[in-house]
Amino acid sequence: MKRILILNGPNLDRLGKREPDTYGTETLADLEALVKAEAAKLGVVAEFFQSNHEGALIDRIHQAGDTGASGIVFNPGGYTHTSVALRDAISSVSVPVIEVHISNVHAREEFRHKSLTAAACKGQIAGLGFEGYLAALRFFAAQ
Amino acid sequence: MKRILILNGPNLDRLGKREPDTYGTETLADLEALVKAEAAKLGVVAEFFQSNHEGALIDRIHQAGDTGASGIVFNPGGYTHTSVALRDAISSVSVPVIEVHISNVHAREEFRHKSLTAAACKGQIAGLGFEGYLAALRFFAAQ
Amino acid sequence: MKRILILNGPNLDRLGKREPDTYGTETLADLEALVKAEAAKLGVVAEFFQSNHEGALIDRIHQAGDTGASGIVFNPGGYTHTSVALRDAISSVSVPVIEVHISNVHAREEFRHKSLTAAACKGQIAGLGFEGYLAALRFFAAQ
Amino acid sequence: MKRILILNGPNLDRLGKREPDTYGTETLADLEALVKAEAAKLGVVAEFFQSNHEGALIDRIHQAGDTGASGIVFNPGGYTHTSVALRDAISSVSVPVIEVHISNVHAREEFRHKSLTAAACKGQIAGLGFEGYLAALRFFAAQ
Amino acid sequence: MKRILILNGPNLDRLGKREPDTYGTETLADLEALVKAEAAKLGVVAEFFQSNHEGALIDRIHQAGDTGASGIVFNPGGYTHTSVALRDAISSVSVPVIEVHISNVHAREEFRHKSLTAAACKGQIAGLGFEGYLAALRFFAAQ
Amino acid sequence: MKRILILNGPNLDRLGKREPDTYGTETLADLEALVKAEAAKLGVVAEFFQSNHEGALIDRIHQAGDTGASGIVFNPGGYTHTSVALRDAISSVSVPVIEVHISNVHAREEFRHKSLTAAACKGQIAGLGFEGYLAALRFFAAQ
Amino acid sequence: MKRILILNGPNLDRLGKREPDTYGTETLADLEALVKAEAAKLGVVAEFFQSNHEGALIDRIHQAGDTGASGIVFNPGGYTHTSVALRDAISSVSVPVIEVHISNVHAREEFRHKSLTAAACKGQIAGLGFEGYLAALRFFAAQ
Amino acid sequence: MKRILILNGPNLDRLGKREPDTYGTETLADLEALVKAEAAKLGVVAEFFQSNHEGALIDRIHQAGDTGASGIVFNPGGYTHTSVALRDAISSVSVPVIEVHISNVHAREEFRHKSLTAAACKGQIAGLGFEGYLAALRFFAAQ
Amino acid sequence: MKRILILNGPNLDRLGKREPDTYGTETLADLEALVKAEAAKLGVVAEFFQSNHEGALIDRIHQAGDTGASGIVFNPGGYTHTSVALRDAISSVSVPVIEVHISNVHAREEFRHKSLTAAACKGQIAGLGFEGYLAALRFFAAQ
Amino acid sequence: MKRILILNGPNLDRLGKREPDTYGTETLADLEALVKAEAAKLGVVAEFFQSNHEGALIDRIHQAGDTGASGIVFNPGGYTHTSVALRDAISSVSVPVIEVHISNVHAREEFRHKSLTAAACKGQIAGLGFEGYLAALRFFAAQ
Amino acid sequence: MKRILILNGPNLDRLGKREPDTYGTETLADLEALVKAEAAKLGVVAEFFQSNHEGALIDRIHQAGDTGASGIVFNPGGYTHTSVALRDAISSVSVPVIEVHISNVHAREEFRHKSLTAAACKGQIAGLGFEGYLAALRFFAAQ
Amino acid sequence: MKRILILNGPNLDRLGKREPDTYGTETLADLEALVKAEAAKLGVVAEFFQSNHEGALIDRIHQAGDTGASGIVFNPGGYTHTSVALRDAISSVSVPVIEVHISNVHAREEFRHKSLTAAACKGQIAGLGFEGYLAALRFFAAQ
Repeated sequence: MKRILILNGPNLDRLGKREPDTYGTETLADLEALVKAEAAKLGVVAEFFQSNHEGALIDRIHQAGDTGASGIVFNPGGYTHTSVALRDAISSVSVPVIEVHISNVHAREEFRHKSLTAAACKGQIAGLGFEGYLAALRFFAAQ
Repeated sequence: MKRILILNGPNLDRLGKREPDTYGTETLADLEALVKAEAAKLGVVAEFFQSNHEGALIDRIHQAGDTGASGIVFNPGGYTHTSVALRDAISSVSVPVIEVHISNVHAREEFRHKSLTAAACKGQIAGLGFEGYLAALRFFAAQ
Repeated sequence: MKRILILNGPNLDRLGKREPDTYGTETLADLEALVKAEAAKLGVVAEFFQSNHEGALIDRIHQAGDTGASGIVFNPGGYTHTSVALRDAISSVSVPVIEVHISNVHAREEFRHKSLTAAACKGQIAGLGFEGYLAALRFFAAQ
Repeated sequence: MKRILILNGPNLDRLGKREPDTYGTETLADLEALVKAEAAKLGVVAEFFQSNHEGALIDRIHQAGDTGASGIVFNPGGYTHTSVALRDAISSVSVPVIEVHISNVHAREEFRHKSLTAAACKGQIAGLGFEGYLAALRFFAAQ
Repeated sequence: MKRILILNGPNLDRLGKREPDTYGTETLADLEALVKAEAAKLGVVAEFFQSNHEGALIDRIHQAGDTGASGIVFNPGGYTHTSVALRDAISSVSVPVIEVHISNVHAREEFRHKSLTAAACKGQIAGLGFEGYLAALRFFAAQ
Repeated sequence: MKRILILNGPNLDRLGKREPDTYGTETLADLEALVKAEAAKLGVVAEFFQSNHEGALIDRIHQAGDTGASGIVFNPGGYTHTSVALRDAISSVSVPVIEVHISNVHAREEFRHKSLTAAACKGQIAGLGFEGYLAALRFFAAQ
Repeated sequence: MKRILILNGPNLDRLGKREPDTYGTETLADLEALVKAEAAKLGVVAEFFQSNHEGALIDRIHQAGDTGASGIVFNPGGYTHTSVALRDAISSVSVPVIEVHISNVHAREEFRHKSLTAAACKGQIAGLGFEGYLAALRFFAAQ
Repeated sequence: MKRILILNGPNLDRLGKREPDTYGTETLADLEALVKAEAAKLGVVAEFFQSNHEGALIDRIHQAGDTGASGIVFNPGGYTHTSVALRDAISSVSVPVIEVHISNVHAREEFRHKSLTAAACKGQIAGLGFEGYLAALRFFAAQ
Repeated sequence: MKRILILNGPNLDRLGKREPDTYGTETLADLEALVKAEAAKLGVVAEFFQSNHEGALIDRIHQAGDTGASGIVFNPGGYTHTSVALRDAISSVSVPVIEVHISNVHAREEFRHKSLTAAACKGQIAGLGFEGYLAALRFFAAQ
Repeated sequence: MKRILILNGPNLDRLGKREPDTYGTETLADLEALVKAEAAKLGVVAEFFQSNHEGALIDRIHQAGDTGASGIVFNPGGYTHTSVALRDAISSVSVPVIEVHISNVHAREEFRHKSLTAAACKGQIAGLGFEGYLAALRFFAAQ
Repeated sequence: MKRILILNGPNLDRLGKREPDTYGTETLADLEALVKAEAAKLGVVAEFFQSNHEGALIDRIHQAGDTGASGIVFNPGGYTHTSVALRDAISSVSVPVIEVHISNVHAREEFRHKSLTAAACKGQIAGLGFEGYLAALRFFAAQ
Repeated sequence: MKRILILNGPNLDRLGKREPDTYGTETLADLEALVKAEAAKLGVVAEFFQSNHEGALIDRIHQAGDTGASGIVFNPGGYTHTSVALRDAISSVSVPVIEVHISNVHAREEFRHKSLTAAACKGQIAGLGFEGYLAALRFFAAQ
């Protein structure tokens, strides 16, 4: 059975408590439930991990690489725009990664338009809310 | 019944004839068939339009605004990075627009990273191939 | 009798339907009526043309050059900031051109501050609403 | 009766003595006579003030704010491109301001294209010579 | 018999009527006659097309690709510096393209130094007047 | 008894009359009263000076240098971002200077993030409202 | 009783051991003693936390948000200039934050002038040494 | 008899009191004596004026233009790098101007390398100390 | 006996598993064996530490400072280009540091040319593969 | 009889030995033979000179100016992008110069797009291989 | 007796033959005669050297350093803006250098405003024609 | 027996006479002795060449390519940052090159951080003094 890692970066543990105009009122637990329900329908396993630590995210990507995950759905949060180390981590594994952002980063502050990490990914989805995670999950399930 | 416009910009009529390493070997007709099959499953109508003319694309966006379409899935091709006029056209209608790119523009030349049009859209999907169109279609169908 | 061309570029056919906070609620037809009334008072002929096609606007400027118009009042819309081709078209005729913007482009997004076309014009008026068209018309009438 | 302040910044006292190819041969006194004649026709009072001192221009804008002027027609000269303090002064009063330039600054040196002050104004008129002052005056008279 | 497309972009229909210091006094018809005479000598067919419409130029490049032309001599005019769409059109056909400019663009305004389209071409010739078209024609004839 | 100069630059005479969302509703006179009360408690003399003239501010800094003031609390207003002359004036005296801004300039327009004058100061306080002046005053009193 | 978090970022555990010209000879323990003495006088509780780990700082800001702290005095050290994730963390809690720097960052290397984090804070104090922490503490105590 | 204006801008009244490593220990009065002695030898009149006020310097340049001075030796101090208004003032008179700097501005901070005013001058002398003023004086005397 | 710390940053645990064209097929364990063999020959102790966590690397540099190591051979991986905090950590200890990169970063993407950390180091070695570590080790052994 | 100088800059002596994918397998001697054969046909004299020394190239351009050459076909190699001195040398003679590049510099690294020297030339030919030299030669022969 | 080296860089051997609007009609020999006459008056020896070769200029500066010259008057021509090697050569000798430009480089193309070499010099004189050389000579004579 | 070329660029003949804080007190002859002693130990031949002439350095690299040297240890001095021609020379030979700098260029002026030549090299060593040459020599000896 395919395993897909759903990886969330810094401040995504604040979902639902934080700037509801930008991120909505649902929590990370809500997202996990939604994703797992969809995974069950698609017949794949969705593993969840969130951390505010850049190093912990790198470690987890390496682990996914070593244990043969089929895909990573990754929301790098603020590290999207500043982390060469995460970009290198994605390049260092053969698992394909799709970057997801809940809000439309292309319509926010200038510094959020550019993604350092997306260049090492399969692709990027932005602005579709939680639905972006599901679209990425379906993509990996269908491969 | 919901109507969704699938709008393709310059050079997308060349799909399948053009740089297969980047864009694959399937044609625009193949894309249309794929999208219409999915639309039938979802119970929505998918309208197709392609043009190389910036003005014709603007006109078609206006028309979708005037006739009450439920969403526009838009691949602006090369105009993505240069067209203020298309950005204004998207802002001038109340229909939500999702920008789609077949390849991962964030991993290509520098000038393809920045999208002028995405800032006026609901969001952007890049790098998922034809699957990106289907993900956007499902998003509008589910609203 | 002097002939003045009032030339409107992309998306100005959306006036009154589009972002009323920025552009007001009056339509292009309202503008045409207002300008023609003022032209009658001034004893000049005001010709009206709008297009979303960059090529069509270039053609019309050429025509004005060939038929001896006395002036062009030109709102290039989004092409203001990206069109070297329109700038060259203005340079290629001997008719003087005044660039007009309804809103104050100097107070909007950074990319709207710079006009490629204005450098080839007699001058530019921005932020005076429809009144900007009348001011330009009077300028040509008084020459 | 409406009062409109006509405010001229550095070097405009040199009009008629200075670079006639750019600024013409008429003097500041000629401009004052022209503007006052037009004001009389329009039934408004035009007050004139010129200074080469940035602080004096700020003081005068504050005064216009305190005494309820209906508008300011302001040519900031070289301060247009360098003065954050004048921009803040315009923002600090509720009187609307129209920025005027005799020459077409958009066709001159690169550093003259960008206006720090215009972002705090109602709009900007450039390249119409003295006629630009009259157009701005008529605008305020017609409000 | 080899077919070579001679493609001219915006404002080149103004040749001979426009800025003679930069572009000379000969017209597009003169250029066509000159090129066709040379083509006859070289034993190739030279097809001529000019348009001010970006979309029409893209269409014509596609057609040349579909009908097996041996080369395209292309003067993209003002679109040289702004059109990602034309660059993509050139990449989308297997016909080699040589970009030609009548004037020496490298000695004019800064924004004319950079060519977006040349990166997708075989090469570029600038500053040799009409002779540049002939040099490109001979290159394709000699392959 | 220690003397501390409280120096306010352009537009600070508009405090309380201007953009209350940014600067509050209290006036410069209120600030003076507040600062003098605190000075009395601390056993130091607070001298007040405000001017919209860059030259007058430079003169006043020189004077403070010549008369042996113990510190200058300086809000340079809009000159913060544009004045090399004020920066040099601060360097030309041995009196330490603390730059104060009522609002958090680091969260406003890009051009307000950079301070030319702060590089010649002891330090900078921004965003604490009138409290920033008192904090700087206490710092000098405690030296 | 109000609780204020005093949060110190990377390398501040080196205070007193490191570059005394820039940071003085007192240690982090000296700072803690100084701040706690002042807190006692003001009748508030000052909690101390230092970490070199970006993720640990984010976690601690979240915790302060969840447990209702009245303010955070934050010296982000080198993360000031590079961390979008910390900026987002500050935005994700409703506790006000004042950024403090011991040295005058505005007078050091160019890359230290710009603060990514300050834009999400109440304000910033730089260059006042340990006194900057006390000034921020008093600000929160006085609210 | 030729009259030459020696014009000194902001902070030059601090000469001898200020940063002796950069500017030496001699005062403005010493400079005046030195220049006047040399003028006497050369048989010309040297007029001295110093101000910290940008407007006063502009006024003085205008006056020199109106009264037929033979040359201006101008040290604009910090205004060198920020004043478009002074640049325009120099352009507005027919008196030739030589810009002088005591220190070698090309070896100091980056922002001191660029002179806005020098572009409107006859030339610039930097780094020769007081000798720079004498060299400029001799230049005008010898014309 | 001299102790030298060999410090490896993010993703270097992937050596041998990752992009062999760039980094070769040998692992971190191979590197450790190679370095320790050389250290034995040179009569020094080589301590090994690798982490993906920026904070852990900072902690380890501090520890090396506190325990009197004779040198640090540091490959900061992706943090090279983004970490002001690591740069400050290096400055905060008196142990000399040599930065090492396995690949020639100066021939890779633009963003890898600039090193924030190297400015605080003794020097940098890039492109010599594992040999770079040995060269740095010999340098410290020979001091 | 017309004399044309064929001037080749640094590394062109390596033709045929160097990067054959970019520059082909023919040598400088092959180029000389090809050019001289064409010159014979055209009835002109082609003089050949190659040097890796910037100064030697400048000297040779001066010599061509002094001895009345009819044209210079110049491939400045790597000096194209860095030499103001060669640009000035071209400007200092009245002989027209055509810049030639064997490869299409506009499709290579960013720093090769910009030519400092071309701005002082008649024009530029790039990407046509050795044929570019012949085209330039014919141009001068036909004048 | 003091020896002063007068060093002229690329293209200055073209003086009098080249662009007389910028450089006048007098030749390098005229300059040499003028300088030597002045040197005789001042009782110093002026040595002359001109070369178009960057390396030869470096060699000559080294020689002046080794033989104890009292000063170098240096016009680096086009190398001013591009040569780090000449800048380093100036730093490598203890002889003071004054940079001289015949024309006012600050009023010419943007790339001529910045001098790499001047930062290593005593100072710079620009725009005074041949008089600039004499002023520099007198400066060294008077030391 | 392997031959290694030790190539030194501009101003390195000044070693020991120049800026001892940056480059030490040993001379180029000392370096040569040191390198030759090490070469003898390693059983390779070290050839020495120094020139201040860019062209001479290019010639010498070509020669090394033609005569089958095993490696080049190259310190390009000031040409590091400005010479595309040297970069192309390195690319034009198959001999591997290691760039060496005595001082840590990454900690000096901004313009010394970027190396044009290193991108064509095997790698770069900076900041290790003469030891950098030895490390490069050993690298080639060990291949």
